Amino acid sequence: MTVEKKEFAVDAAYETHWTKLTQTATKLQYYSMIGSLSGWDMQTMMPDGAFEKRAEAAGFLAGETHRLMTDPRLEEAVEALMEGAEAGHLGEREARSVALFDRNLKKIKNIPEERYRAYFTLTARGESVWRRAREANDFSSFAPLLEEIVAMSREFIDYLGYEEHPYDALLDDYEPGLTVKRIDQLFPALREGLIQLMKKIEASPHKPDLNRVRGTFPEAQQKKISRTVSERLGFDYHKGRLDKSAHPFTVGLHPTDVRITTRYFATDPFSSLYSTVHEAGHGMYEQNLPLELEPYPGLMAPVSMGVHESQSRFFENVIGRSYGFWQYVLPLYQEAFPDVFGKLDAEEVFRLVNASRPSLIRVEADEVTYNLHIMLRYELEKSLMSGEIKVRDLPELWREKMDAYLGIRPKTDAEGVLQDVHWSSGLFGYFPSYTLGNIYASQLYAALRKDIPDLEERLSSGDWEGPLHWMKSHIHRYGSLLDPLPLIERASGAPLSIEPLLNYLEEKMARVYRF
Amino acid sequence: MTVEKKEFAVDAAYETHWTKLTQTATKLQYYSMIGSLSGWDMQTMMPDGAFEKRAEAAGFLAGETHRLMTDPRLEEAVEALMEGAEAGHLGEREARSVALFDRNLKKIKNIPEERYRAYFTLTARGESVWRRAREANDFSSFAPLLEEIVAMSREFIDYLGYEEHPYDALLDDYEPGLTVKRIDQLFPALREGLIQLMKKIEASPHKPDLNRVRGTFPEAQQKKISRTVSERLGFDYHKGRLDKSAHPFTVGLHPTDVRITTRYFATDPFSSLYSTVHEAGHGMYEQNLPLELEPYPGLMAPVSMGVHESQSRFFENVIGRSYGFWQYVLPLYQEAFPDVFGKLDAEEVFRLVNASRPSLIRVEADEVTYNLHIMLRYELEKSLMSGEIKVRDLPELWREKMDAYLGIRPKTDAEGVLQDVHWSSGLFGYFPSYTLGNIYASQLYAALRKDIPDLEERLSSGDWEGPLHWMKSHIHRYGSLLDPLPLIERASGAPLSIEPLLNYLEEKMARVYRF
Repeated sequence: MTVEKKEFAVDAAYETHWTKLTQTATKLQYYSMIGSLSGWDMQTMMPDGAFEKRAEAAGFLAGETHRLMTDPRLEEAVEALMEGAEAGHLGEREARSVALFDRNLKKIKNIPEERYRAYFTLTARGESVWRRAREANDFSSFAPLLEEIVAMSREFIDYLGYEEHPYDALLDDYEPGLTVKRIDQLFPALREGLIQLMKKIEASPHKPDLNRVRGTFPEAQQKKISRTVSERLGFDYHKGRLDKSAHPFTVGLHPTDVRITTRYFATDPFSSLYSTVHEAGHGMYEQNLPLELEPYPGLMAPVSMGVHESQSRFFENVIGRSYGFWQYVLPLYQEAFPDVFGKLDAEEVFRLVNASRPSLIRVEADEVTYNLHIMLRYELEKSLMSGEIKVRDLPELWREKMDAYLGIRPKTDAEGVLQDVHWSSGLFGYFPSYTLGNIYASQLYAALRKDIPDLEERLSSGDWEGPLHWMKSHIHRYGSLLDPLPLIERASGAPLSIEPLLNYLEEKMARVYRF
Repeated sequence: MTVEKKEFAVDAAYETHWTKLTQTATKLQYYSMIGSLSGWDMQTMMPDGAFEKRAEAAGFLAGETHRLMTDPRLEEAVEALMEGAEAGHLGEREARSVALFDRNLKKIKNIPEERYRAYFTLTARGESVWRRAREANDFSSFAPLLEEIVAMSREFIDYLGYEEHPYDALLDDYEPGLTVKRIDQLFPALREGLIQLMKKIEASPHKPDLNRVRGTFPEAQQKKISRTVSERLGFDYHKGRLDKSAHPFTVGLHPTDVRITTRYFATDPFSSLYSTVHEAGHGMYEQNLPLELEPYPGLMAPVSMGVHESQSRFFENVIGRSYGFWQYVLPLYQEAFPDVFGKLDAEEVFRLVNASRPSLIRVEADEVTYNLHIMLRYELEKSLMSGEIKVRDLPELWREKMDAYLGIRPKTDAEGVLQDVHWSSGLFGYFPSYTLGNIYASQLYAALRKDIPDLEERLSSGDWEGPLHWMKSHIHRYGSLLDPLPLIERASGAPLSIEPLLNYLEEKMARVYRF
């Protein structure tokens, strides 16, 4: 399949149906744009007092979306178009568009409008309630809302349907086709490999000295570095912006309006940078979705959250934690914070930012232990959705699992069960995307290295165009034309596998820990 | 009429109609909220590249509004309710609500949806095109768009209808009932009075020395002062925020979410403050609209732009340019800018910020000459709308009228015809609201002084609650229950008159210029 421009290709008999579909899709796109804007605003700009009314507005927008999607004339049109596609009366893009639309329509049609709307009102409230609960380290103030969200998610699972495990219904929303069964084929072997690697790291006498970056790092300078580095990687500020939020995120209103956020800690000079680079990875995917696919509903869109995370995790870790990257970036840090960074060289910073040790916060975790944080969340979500555990069990189960997986226990819920924004927004089923993203990213990296064998030297010298260029032509340009697995297989030239990730980590850690 | 809480009061026979009306109004409120958010975002946050797509979204939202407003079942319901109100089957608030809704419905019903939508797409584009044209001092790059906006405004005048002058159709949108005829009864006498006052000022040997505030005033300190002063006046940051934009404005998404903007000039320490205080005046009106009127469509809303401007101009000028205000605020300036303000006392700053001399920029104009800027715009708009003049005539006519009214000619269009944002957003008919606002404000001030005879002393000592409290109970709490003139008459205890404005200015200028 190619994405070159083709003539409009719908057989005359299907034109009315196609028009109905595209008109609805255009409206849905506007609703999605302004809904995204409102969501971004809630997390970055909105005054606290506005919270209740805005949550209602989110519910209203969801209701309008639902109304459009469940219009019987739309269903008729989509059914006719599905038949037309099967009989070869539609072009390739139109057929793909219709198939994706049909998939979404089947998901939403069993959900009563009132419940759909209530769900969005509820989850729009979530971020703010969670933020305050985390600040106050008070799980009990978040639990009642979380219970409602869990109950509604389980109710929605029944509307959505599933074949084997209730959690499959949610996984499919973020990664089409992903199931508990498939995850359970990947995660245990990955876990085993990671634990072996952790043992080697533990045994190494060559540990980076984290005390070398003690100091105070004012926000203004951190902000400047985040901006410079993200721009240099290819995030386009003519079509995007960078703000501050409690939990970093990316929102794409349209390829011409993509907003990323980060957060700043005065005692940590790297956290804001890596959040920015992570989100810039998401943001560049959104910015480079092909505008020529805009006329085809659903095609000018990221194909899955796993693929989305492959982009963010690739830029954050593969690029952002590479030696070449630091050869170029260190001078920015030395200029901003001469006292601390004046004494360091690129090799040492490279080792510091790749230091691996069990830690409490997922988004600050190193690449080796990161996936264990995901596995913990995966197991909790799966059991919550099947009803085996309850919201009230979460804080203690979190502590137990942290102990079992990473050998440490959070002292507070703020650094335990309250650390992530996801559940407050109803994003159950999302977390596995991160590990999938890591797996995809390392497959893509293996292929990219063949095309750019001198990547490290290029990064060192400030020639940073390669990685984005490669991602544009192997991932971004396809929009949602291909399903995630075929897309990754085509781009990487290999089937899904955890080996590239384990090899990549082994290679990097061997360099950091000198084993 | 009182605004105390009353029982729900719609006769059973009209309940279905009332339900139809309120359901539609609720949707319209959400559209208006997210449309306002999008408009705010366009002017403060949105990346440049997003401009086209967002203008389309503005058109889409307008189209949805139009569709809701022109639903035949809504018209039926409103007609039935109008009859019901006449026959006494509706409560007072419901009847007022229906009457206002009917007025808006009659306005929109003759406008074809396609044109309505096109108008909003066009004017959403306007701000950005205008901003660039003003920056480049290039009227020709703005003229084609302005021509389109003028042509569409004239087309809309035909849909809206009018009795005497085409411009009346637009005036009525900002100030219900306002006509060219009424303005022509007010403005010439006001102009005459102002010119007499300008002569006295000109003749005075006691002119404030404007060279006393030369310097550079960094944005960060200006921002801090703007924030402190607006908060102290009563703008509630729990339900609002302050940002930066090319042209200061206020947008109320809801009483719980009101956003004001200002702009900063490094060489002018007062401009950002007065823009902030002006917009805070608007903002406090929006924040204090009574939530108890929310169930009644259209009542929890500012009643007119003239009344809105009475609030902004009151806080900006009557309070913000008073001697008492400066006794309290000067220490903030002295702390922020000790070199310049260390040498000044409150009396001198009071005289400086009230210095009156012909100047080019309306929003920077003193209170005496300000209304002449409005009269110039009023005349140009009136002639544009009647077709007597064309867009291409504007730059030269602007220069000529500035010369005739104020005795000065702008050297560039940026400080002439391009200075205001209004036309780029299609706001023809708005400008007279400013002078009406000044007239209303001085009537309100005359009444307020009787209630708070020691206002100056209170302001001096930092007891700033009085003015907002007075406005809340005499203006804000009524929402749109009363029409503008009855509202102002009731609040001020006197009929509409230019005398209080002329007296207020005379008194203040006598103090500044010692005549």
